[in-house]
Amino acid sequence: MTIKTVSTNLTHGGVQGVYQHASKETGTEMTFSVFVPPHAEGATLPVVWYLSGLTCTHANVTEKGEFRKACAELGLIFVAPDTSPRGESVPDDVEGAYDFGLGAGFYVDATEAPFATNYRMWSYVTEELPALIADEFPVADMSRQSIMGHSMGGHGALTIGLTFPDRFKAVSAFAPIVAPSQVPWGHKALPGYLGEDKARWRKHDAVALIEDGARVEALLVDQGTADNFLEGQLKPELLKTACASAGIDLTLRLQEGYDHSYYFISTFMPDHLAWHAARLK
Amino acid sequence: MTIKTVSTNLTHGGVQGVYQHASKETGTEMTFSVFVPPHAEGATLPVVWYLSGLTCTHANVTEKGEFRKACAELGLIFVAPDTSPRGESVPDDVEGAYDFGLGAGFYVDATEAPFATNYRMWSYVTEELPALIADEFPVADMSRQSIMGHSMGGHGALTIGLTFPDRFKAVSAFAPIVAPSQVPWGHKALPGYLGEDKARWRKHDAVALIEDGARVEALLVDQGTADNFLEGQLKPELLKTACASAGIDLTLRLQEGYDHSYYFISTFMPDHLAWHAARLK
Repeated sequence: MTIKTVSTNLTHGGVQGVYQHASKETGTEMTFSVFVPPHAEGATLPVVWYLSGLTCTHANVTEKGEFRKACAELGLIFVAPDTSPRGESVPDDVEGAYDFGLGAGFYVDATEAPFATNYRMWSYVTEELPALIADEFPVADMSRQSIMGHSMGGHGALTIGLTFPDRFKAVSAFAPIVAPSQVPWGHKALPGYLGEDKARWRKHDAVALIEDGARVEALLVDQGTADNFLEGQLKPELLKTACASAGIDLTLRLQEGYDHSYYFISTFMPDHLAWHAARLK
Repeated sequence: MTIKTVSTNLTHGGVQGVYQHASKETGTEMTFSVFVPPHAEGATLPVVWYLSGLTCTHANVTEKGEFRKACAELGLIFVAPDTSPRGESVPDDVEGAYDFGLGAGFYVDATEAPFATNYRMWSYVTEELPALIADEFPVADMSRQSIMGHSMGGHGALTIGLTFPDRFKAVSAFAPIVAPSQVPWGHKALPGYLGEDKARWRKHDAVALIEDGARVEALLVDQGTADNFLEGQLKPELLKTACASAGIDLTLRLQEGYDHSYYFISTFMPDHLAWHAARLK
């Protein structure tokens, strides 16, 4: 095994595991979690990726996401990576802010010093970790995966899903950052990791990707109306406009009174997983 | 309001709240959580109590218990108290051990110094907090409640349920301590809180209570076979024998491969809540 098992627990008839491995992309030890639902001996299953938001590790969704019951019923493997490289040697935001550096990798391959060495989360979640998952878990077919995420992880899910439409048969998000080029979180992260040339930001901005011709068949997005970040950072109306122009079948559900927390995510998680399962069949 | 709202989050169509109040019983600020499911204006609902295990606060089950979906579907209010008084002035285990003192109140009214002043968790969870819940939340009928718990909290649920069979229409437990008088955790806690006279321990020992004539119609207990505490501390076979002698309808389910964690609890939580709801009708 090229991975180290941190813990495994039997749950909902399957196994929730937490694992570590030495990542070539990030140059660090990376931790991730995988839930493998109950399945017949020798059976293989589709993989759903869940990308987490700012400040999170694999643990937030693993503990609070309430995905296991639905994954067990639907027969889905659920993979949750970390949100950035970690460790003493990994550069962080100069002021230790929550929205850049550790816990805030924004799912890009950084080109700017001092981040370029370790902050290679795009390649990590699209290449290195999928290869590891394919080797180590009973996955059916890595050409038929799906992806979802929350907030910064919703940004990751949308940009990755739009970039690899053949690989990801379903793409959904909870309260995603849909246009980082147009909001403060992105105005800090994108130049910090990718430099000042805004042309280089467009591959990491879901709205810009769609404007530039990226297409998926359908998107599902849930957004709470009581989310503190809704107006300043998330702006789902920008995604709505872009999808309308592009002919992408966006289901955008504004959920009255819901906030940005896992209390929101866990409420709609079963819906998302059912939507993914239908498209992974 | 005699309670202070720490947080509320809309979730599964209801409200998950965390609250604080000044407890007369414990002489401290106590924190608890309440989930109120979606309900018609003016409707009132039955209350399910969940008592937590060693080291826990209200937060463990609130974050990891996966009870909200089922409570929303079944129309149940879910109340989770803390496991002990807390604060600078509250005496703890002399060595700071996890199994006595803070986080380990064992749901008794201590009689021994220095614990007798603050460690009044029996009166707190059976009298003071229920009165507060009845005042502040849309509860249907405090003569028709139910109670469940985990480990030390399973001990609490069983002893309280057996003591107030008219009040609690359903009693269940996950991996409960069923006979603290006969296991190391109890051999430390019961004399520490109640003194050396073993006769005084019997009201806080589910098996002894049943031997002494306490009765409930039915009990539901789930116990993982991979639980590290099974043989040394939990001993469900003692409950099985006591219930068989007493004619109590015990459903004891040994769950193959499950451990002592919330991964176990969350798996069987919906079953327990459905069982409670059927008996609360």
